[in-house]
Amino acid sequence: MKNTDRINPAIAAIPQTKRDAINAAIQRKKNLPNLAAGNPVMPMPKTITDRTMAFLSAGFVRYTDYYGFPELRRRLSEVLQSQWGIAANPESELLITSGIQEGLYVVMRTILQPGDEVLIPSPHYGTYFQNTVACGAVPIVVPLDEAEGFQPDIDRLARAITPRTRAIVFCNPSNPLGVVWPRAAIERIADLARRHDLIVLVDEIYRDFVFEAPPPSIAGLEDMRIRTFTFGGFSKTYMMMGLRIGFVAGPPALMPTVKKLHYCLTLCPSVIAQVAAQAALDCPVDEVRPVITEFLDKLQLLYRGISSLPGVRCVPPGGSFYIFPNFRAYSSDSMALALRLIEDADVITLPGSEFGELGEGFLRLSVCAPKADVEEGLKRLQVFFQRCARNE
Amino acid sequence: MKNTDRINPAIAAIPQTKRDAINAAIQRKKNLPNLAAGNPVMPMPKTITDRTMAFLSAGFVRYTDYYGFPELRRRLSEVLQSQWGIAANPESELLITSGIQEGLYVVMRTILQPGDEVLIPSPHYGTYFQNTVACGAVPIVVPLDEAEGFQPDIDRLARAITPRTRAIVFCNPSNPLGVVWPRAAIERIADLARRHDLIVLVDEIYRDFVFEAPPPSIAGLEDMRIRTFTFGGFSKTYMMMGLRIGFVAGPPALMPTVKKLHYCLTLCPSVIAQVAAQAALDCPVDEVRPVITEFLDKLQLLYRGISSLPGVRCVPPGGSFYIFPNFRAYSSDSMALALRLIEDADVITLPGSEFGELGEGFLRLSVCAPKADVEEGLKRLQVFFQRCARNE
Repeated sequence: MKNTDRINPAIAAIPQTKRDAINAAIQRKKNLPNLAAGNPVMPMPKTITDRTMAFLSAGFVRYTDYYGFPELRRRLSEVLQSQWGIAANPESELLITSGIQEGLYVVMRTILQPGDEVLIPSPHYGTYFQNTVACGAVPIVVPLDEAEGFQPDIDRLARAITPRTRAIVFCNPSNPLGVVWPRAAIERIADLARRHDLIVLVDEIYRDFVFEAPPPSIAGLEDMRIRTFTFGGFSKTYMMMGLRIGFVAGPPALMPTVKKLHYCLTLCPSVIAQVAAQAALDCPVDEVRPVITEFLDKLQLLYRGISSLPGVRCVPPGGSFYIFPNFRAYSSDSMALALRLIEDADVITLPGSEFGELGEGFLRLSVCAPKADVEEGLKRLQVFFQRCARNE
Repeated sequence: MKNTDRINPAIAAIPQTKRDAINAAIQRKKNLPNLAAGNPVMPMPKTITDRTMAFLSAGFVRYTDYYGFPELRRRLSEVLQSQWGIAANPESELLITSGIQEGLYVVMRTILQPGDEVLIPSPHYGTYFQNTVACGAVPIVVPLDEAEGFQPDIDRLARAITPRTRAIVFCNPSNPLGVVWPRAAIERIADLARRHDLIVLVDEIYRDFVFEAPPPSIAGLEDMRIRTFTFGGFSKTYMMMGLRIGFVAGPPALMPTVKKLHYCLTLCPSVIAQVAAQAALDCPVDEVRPVITEFLDKLQLLYRGISSLPGVRCVPPGGSFYIFPNFRAYSSDSMALALRLIEDADVITLPGSEFGELGEGFLRLSVCAPKADVEEGLKRLQVFFQRCARNE
């Protein structure tokens, strides 16, 4: 084979998102209520915007410390200790990344080797699967049962473990499921990880968006620090998605190698994004709390409306921006259903199949749109499905 | 071996920069003239700062198109066509990346497989070697001869080619060498690549910093587009280092796979950085030209001063921020020499060994510091080496 045609099979095997089909359908329509996006239509809190503008006004945007401002890491370490219950040395256990996306990749590529297996409770956020494949490793999808409220089934996870199993990756609260795994579930996963020598990768980006208190971070449980990478970011709580800034706290034995790869990939994180992240840590709670309340109110509204649709089942959300209702009564092809909703109901939703085969038959609905759009989108879904139900 | 200790050997093998030793030595001194840094002490042009601030003032920093603003890609495609002589379709052949660093990684990881060989003319920019190793591939360092002005030796490159050779990677103008490979050299490399079916990775970040016209982009030569990835950025010309924004133009057969990996790694480039990049394309030439002139003047000044030191040889620079003088008359251990210069001459330089074993005995000197610092640094080097020469 010629070098001009030769592609690394691991990278070729990364599953392609099918959002293009959705985006193409949207192009033909205008201003539809968007219940698909994970990209909120919200500005950053004023404190962050002001501080970032003040920094930018001088025009100096130089390279920074490769691993993030030392002061940002130090402050973050304090927050992790006091609010997340995680002890992470800012020099040896904390890395500032270009969003969680980069963090997940550098960690996975550091700890995984071709043929290694990674447990992915599913339906799952697509990147966990894609990055596993991109490392030449094997994603082992372990079903989460809708009837059990998408809570983890420890026996089923245990049965999926082989001598090649290296890690388990999940997010809590969950994108796309909207559920929160409580302390008891986290303790059982920690126990499983200790017994089977698993590395735990946990994405806690939606930690602040919960109806009750956030669940404990698994890295804070006994003996878990040596086997846990905790991913966090500023994108959701502070509406800083487009700045691409996050962090990973991980075991001191593995982080130096993760940091070497991070340097190769990025040199350093964005200086503006780091300034914004530092401002976020100073942001008064009354600039953030109303946004969180608004999102949770929209989530409750959407859940109530969707779960009252004829024939639709929906696990009640515990947090995040999402619900993951079951529309199998109407279609077992969620992409076809989502495309039909754009065409016939004038509302954008995301097919559950974007979150793995186990998401087939579901839709992911989000509350990132303004409240009026969420309400209008819900109304259109109600009209559409009530008409469908009558015609059956 | 326990999973908590297990590291991907390819990532473990990435050579670690030794800049820590330099940084530690600097900590003990204050405000030394810095002739080591590639991180200019300069603000962005006012047009870019103003436009970026105007965008930021609304506080909305949302996710963007995964591959960069379509409009940014379209504009960039026009610039590549008119100024670089590269035809790159903005939809299928252009990707906006988080700096060239990200671009290099996603391309290398897409085209390389374990055991593949990559030709690296050397002394070289460290990332070319590190990323090759990070892909499990084998860097084949091919010496550039100081006596030949660090111009490529095509016969030597040809002799290094084996059935496993996939690619060649270089930058033009060169960091760390400061030399520019002219049209004739580029044509000979293109010829070599066509004959031996090599992929060419060329980093043209210093393209605007040249004493004469920039050399032709190899991607613009006949039949080279199907085998060339061209990396460019905004960091140097527009002093946007810390925003982390660059691009890669590559073959349409390979770019879709590169883009999939880019999505896994970054989701999308920074929105602020993309706004700044778009402003850069609109930036009046009279905001940029004085900066380039200043850097080239400093480079000329530094070259003249250094090449007149007793016993020091220096290839005349054609551009970039750097010269790469040979100090073997004083020391064959460039790290020891750089540390001694911090201690005894109060000036910061970078050991040539940071650019591969073939850089041993050299120092990389840069003109990123303000002119007064470059002058002061040069003066201190002159005093130090004249004293050394007298004592011999």
